[in-house]
Amino acid sequence: MELVDPADRPRCPEEAVMTQIESTETNGIDVTALVQTIEATKEDPSLSSFTFRARSIWQDGTHNVGQIHGFTHAGAQDHSRAAPFVLHGDEPPVLLGANKGANAVELLLQGLAFCYAVGFVANAAARGIEISRMEYEVEGDFDVRPFLGMPGQRPGFSRIRATGRVSSPNATPEQLQQLCRYVQDTSPVRDSLVNAVPVETTLQVI
Amino acid sequence: MELVDPADRPRCPEEAVMTQIESTETNGIDVTALVQTIEATKEDPSLSSFTFRARSIWQDGTHNVGQIHGFTHAGAQDHSRAAPFVLHGDEPPVLLGANKGANAVELLLQGLAFCYAVGFVANAAARGIEISRMEYEVEGDFDVRPFLGMPGQRPGFSRIRATGRVSSPNATPEQLQQLCRYVQDTSPVRDSLVNAVPVETTLQVI
Repeated sequence: MELVDPADRPRCPEEAVMTQIESTETNGIDVTALVQTIEATKEDPSLSSFTFRARSIWQDGTHNVGQIHGFTHAGAQDHSRAAPFVLHGDEPPVLLGANKGANAVELLLQGLAFCYAVGFVANAAARGIEISRMEYEVEGDFDVRPFLGMPGQRPGFSRIRATGRVSSPNATPEQLQQLCRYVQDTSPVRDSLVNAVPVETTLQVI
Repeated sequence: MELVDPADRPRCPEEAVMTQIESTETNGIDVTALVQTIEATKEDPSLSSFTFRARSIWQDGTHNVGQIHGFTHAGAQDHSRAAPFVLHGDEPPVLLGANKGANAVELLLQGLAFCYAVGFVANAAARGIEISRMEYEVEGDFDVRPFLGMPGQRPGFSRIRATGRVSSPNATPEQLQQLCRYVQDTSPVRDSLVNAVPVETTLQVI
């Protein structure tokens, strides 16, 4: 993240005392905490390590209930979430479901939209760019034939398109386009899609 | 999908008449409809084409609201969903958020879990395998440094592990393991992760 460290700003002695309690917030992002996170991770690289988790419990037909709760950070379990986030997954009728929730491939597109949005707003905050409005629309082309056991294109998305719409009161269009490129280069979800991720799958028969 | 077409079963004349209204259901999957879908797609390959969509609207900080609603099937808009599915995306406090929802990379893991579950239960139904219980747990290792602008591993998941737990009253462990391998080979989400997907990103400054 291309940061201007708030500690580098010229300040008077009174302001220096204030930094102990001051929080610099832009776009709802606590930039002071962001800088502290970066500095702490530089000092102790083990802080950069996360293992995230999701669980799904089959209900009936194409309907599953998902739970996202704890994760591991720097080797320790995070306990910040009192209860799991619960998601319903299902297919539309044309894919033999009852629309009790979004389907699996739609969640991938939603993940990319959220990832771009978080990356954009956080990096904007780090650069002092204010965001007044931001939306993403993501769409992906998909051939269901391989899933149905027929020859076709690949089983997954053949192509994904993402369009962001952003307004800023203090940045030029060029700055925002440059930020958009930076966000793509550092996006965890985009990287997991445009580059191969090893997936190890095991089945326990119980 | 390795199907035994119900039409191939020996049947008496009375049963033949019944097939007009009969629905063969296994694991909550309408196998008759599944076979009809496959046959229709074989006859008209344009039926295999889908474009799915997700939208995200930024709220504040790392909090975004996602909407998943319509999709395009065979060139036409699907109208089966009266209202959008609404998801909240956010980060945990350690990543500068307030836990108003799961984060972007967790949604990817949830998508893989749902995809495996749907693939398993549908292909089991097609093979006459009854499923009495099925769960998936998926976890992914992640290095936050590239997202924070520091050298590190790749921005995305370095590795994903999925574990299924399944019970069946009428299948052998070998049949279930074989099915698990088939589901991996045809899983849209797994394929989108283990193989590269082209992602085209554009930004509109408004």
